[in-house]
Amino acid sequence: MAKELKELTPRSKDYSQWYLDLVIKAELAENSAVRGCMVIKPYGYAIWEKMQRQLDDMFKETGHVNAYFPLFIPKSFLSREADHVEGFAKECAVVTHYRLKNAPDGSGVVVDPEAKLEEELIVRPTSETIIWSTYKNWIQSYRDLPILINQWANVVRWEMRTRLFLRTAEFLWQEGHTAHATKQEAIEEAKQMINVYAEFAEKYMAMPVVKGLKSESERFAGAIDTYTIEALMQDGKALQSGTSHFLGQNFAKAFDVQFTDQNGKRDYVWATSWGVSTRLMGALIMSHSDDNGLVLPPKLAPYQVVIVPIYKNSEQLQQIDEKVAGIVQRLKAFGISVKYDNSDNKKPGWKFSEYELKGVPVRLAMGGRDLENNTIEVARRDTLTKETLSCDNIETHIKSLLDEMQENIYKKAADFRASQIRKVNSYEEFKVEIEKGGFLLCHWDGTPETEERVKEETKATIRCIPLDGDKTPGKCMVTGKPSAQRVLFARAY
Amino acid sequence: MAKELKELTPRSKDYSQWYLDLVIKAELAENSAVRGCMVIKPYGYAIWEKMQRQLDDMFKETGHVNAYFPLFIPKSFLSREADHVEGFAKECAVVTHYRLKNAPDGSGVVVDPEAKLEEELIVRPTSETIIWSTYKNWIQSYRDLPILINQWANVVRWEMRTRLFLRTAEFLWQEGHTAHATKQEAIEEAKQMINVYAEFAEKYMAMPVVKGLKSESERFAGAIDTYTIEALMQDGKALQSGTSHFLGQNFAKAFDVQFTDQNGKRDYVWATSWGVSTRLMGALIMSHSDDNGLVLPPKLAPYQVVIVPIYKNSEQLQQIDEKVAGIVQRLKAFGISVKYDNSDNKKPGWKFSEYELKGVPVRLAMGGRDLENNTIEVARRDTLTKETLSCDNIETHIKSLLDEMQENIYKKAADFRASQIRKVNSYEEFKVEIEKGGFLLCHWDGTPETEERVKEETKATIRCIPLDGDKTPGKCMVTGKPSAQRVLFARAY
Repeated sequence: MAKELKELTPRSKDYSQWYLDLVIKAELAENSAVRGCMVIKPYGYAIWEKMQRQLDDMFKETGHVNAYFPLFIPKSFLSREADHVEGFAKECAVVTHYRLKNAPDGSGVVVDPEAKLEEELIVRPTSETIIWSTYKNWIQSYRDLPILINQWANVVRWEMRTRLFLRTAEFLWQEGHTAHATKQEAIEEAKQMINVYAEFAEKYMAMPVVKGLKSESERFAGAIDTYTIEALMQDGKALQSGTSHFLGQNFAKAFDVQFTDQNGKRDYVWATSWGVSTRLMGALIMSHSDDNGLVLPPKLAPYQVVIVPIYKNSEQLQQIDEKVAGIVQRLKAFGISVKYDNSDNKKPGWKFSEYELKGVPVRLAMGGRDLENNTIEVARRDTLTKETLSCDNIETHIKSLLDEMQENIYKKAADFRASQIRKVNSYEEFKVEIEKGGFLLCHWDGTPETEERVKEETKATIRCIPLDGDKTPGKCMVTGKPSAQRVLFARAY
Repeated sequence: MAKELKELTPRSKDYSQWYLDLVIKAELAENSAVRGCMVIKPYGYAIWEKMQRQLDDMFKETGHVNAYFPLFIPKSFLSREADHVEGFAKECAVVTHYRLKNAPDGSGVVVDPEAKLEEELIVRPTSETIIWSTYKNWIQSYRDLPILINQWANVVRWEMRTRLFLRTAEFLWQEGHTAHATKQEAIEEAKQMINVYAEFAEKYMAMPVVKGLKSESERFAGAIDTYTIEALMQDGKALQSGTSHFLGQNFAKAFDVQFTDQNGKRDYVWATSWGVSTRLMGALIMSHSDDNGLVLPPKLAPYQVVIVPIYKNSEQLQQIDEKVAGIVQRLKAFGISVKYDNSDNKKPGWKFSEYELKGVPVRLAMGGRDLENNTIEVARRDTLTKETLSCDNIETHIKSLLDEMQENIYKKAADFRASQIRKVNSYEEFKVEIEKGGFLLCHWDGTPETEERVKEETKATIRCIPLDGDKTPGKCMVTGKPSAQRVLFARAY
């Protein structure tokens, strides 16, 4: 890859193209031959694996276990919950046959009309229906509750306009599906999981989020309440990054899942579901990266440190190799992941821009003078600054540097967001402000009609009714009717 | 669950029913509402996660990285490699439409005929075709090689007769897909991965395997050579447990993937693929378990130790709780996974049979007398023996006990297999011996005709041509024609 091949369209010129350039050139993902489906490339997948591992640990710490349910959902199951089928039927992949056969004219293989399924199967867009049809057999009494299950899986939603990571026909995700004896316990679970997501976003992705409730029209199809975390991208647009749903008894009723409580009374089971997906990759990229490439928070970087030797001849390289071997060992002993790139078919300059593009947090470089002086050059990706330091105790320095970078990356995103959240009091002002992007906190009368009008006229939606912060009542910016609290408006991905 | 609900059909009475009872009652998996698709329950999935984690580490140690490719394969891709389409077209799930709509008569949702795909999509039965269509864009020169990628995914093969874990329409697996500049390197890769599988089977699953090459008729559809590991189940039947394929240039030719070598010459790329699946769960269960339930090698047990308190009153329970807390801490510090079950709605006897059924390697029990004497009862699942030991340094004892059990479980399986491998020299003898089960080492003339005749007449197949062991030539037991070496026959799952 020549240097110019690594150049990205600047964000200021075309943000959307910058994003696409970056995803492709940093080798995170690419479009496949199948419309709307992506290939997640090894470097991108390594970041996703880091996310998965951390989230999985957090789910297990909160008492959840993993399981696996079928990829296919009988068409009739999808139809059981009215809102649910309404939400997913229009964009789903339908399996109708189970065999191909040779074409009579020898032109290849064709669908065998004799192998038609009695009932069509839907490739899961989400698994509430297949899971609640299963829970029916698992739940008789309060002793069988709660059920706290998570699944890592692929799902398919036949989106017409797709964008790598942000909106794809197939994506990877986790979906938690829990069953409870009481309404209150289910609500607590839904809240707990949105808090887990917020903690993950802030501590690991270094991405500040606003936690809140969705308005009725933005709720998950089949939910009573949807909790969401909303992040702000660098272009001033919002990105819904994770949702947790209180499903009430909707799916229990649809699949007739009842239990006997401690007093011998029968009732329907209470439910939640919650999920985050490879969409988080898009959120991560758009929160921190710059015109030189990816910027990764150290906690999610496939490798946190890369070391590049700068040498005149093979003898010098050998000396550097020996010196670096000790440093690598010391870094690893500190739990720091490190790659030593002494490949001889690429020049140091090429390597520097490659690792900058890929967002490796810290780049170390060692040359002939460093050998003499027992020094090493330390460059950090977030600030693009560098300094030359002694090799002694370099591992201690790097360890605290990585912590500092994790915090700095978060702080930068938080400062940006703070500059982009503003209270707006009139609809006139709103129409002007929304063009500048960002999160607008406004009073709203709580009706779908007003929400729809704002959406049609400004393309802005209610991202959430924030859980924390100012709860002062006021008057709707559009209709002047009473408003319980300000809600968060933005244009969104 | 009452005690009788935990009883299994004895193996001697009906091995097949014993297996099914065990999978259901130990809560490993169950059939779903979708024909042929299973639900993997949390306890079963926890074992699978242990397998995944270990295999993934082994793949990474041998230089592989993970990635993700689309679930769907365009029909025309499947057809590109002649043997491949022949092997998979007859049992595949075909997506033909991308939308449902409300039925005109209000009876629910129906497939929208206007949402027909231009080209049907096949739910991947394996991913060679979609991956090699992608590799075409990734490979120009020898510098782009090797590509060493693995994918963890679900696949679908529309099997007509299914059995939990052993043969299901959907299953979970990993599939490695590598690309190389030379034939030799690809062959070495295929061999390396069958060795990785064998090591995993023996060291972690405690399951001895025979490594070998498949005969032509048993090869993977599209492969030049298929390496396999074959295990022997307790009922004397063989189970193919993992395969690694040298694909030659077949898929490179099908997708026109060429590269320029160091001398500027163009050639097609050399390939391998290799996979193991949730079928390994069936292999694990059938290798070690008994009429009381699952027997798990400690290295794959979701928790290695369970502790059950035996108490007369809540005061005594509190004393035991305190004593056990220290033991739990010491066990965990030794890297031993442990569960303390002090739930008060189940009696100790119920818990004992429950954890026996679930194959927890070590069960500790502490009662009033143990409290007085500073002792604890230690029961091991593999031998069903128990002894009372001092609590002092119990963690050291348990640690070495778990190692001993891992070895013992392997040894038991290896001894059983040794008793079931025998050389057979005549076809008459073969027909008698095959009825007794086991692995039969016999001379074979190397022709598909002889192989087919044996299969038709005895239901036995050639499991593999062993890589190690006796290579003395001889005469085919059926035709008397020359044979290069004995091959392994068995009836198989």
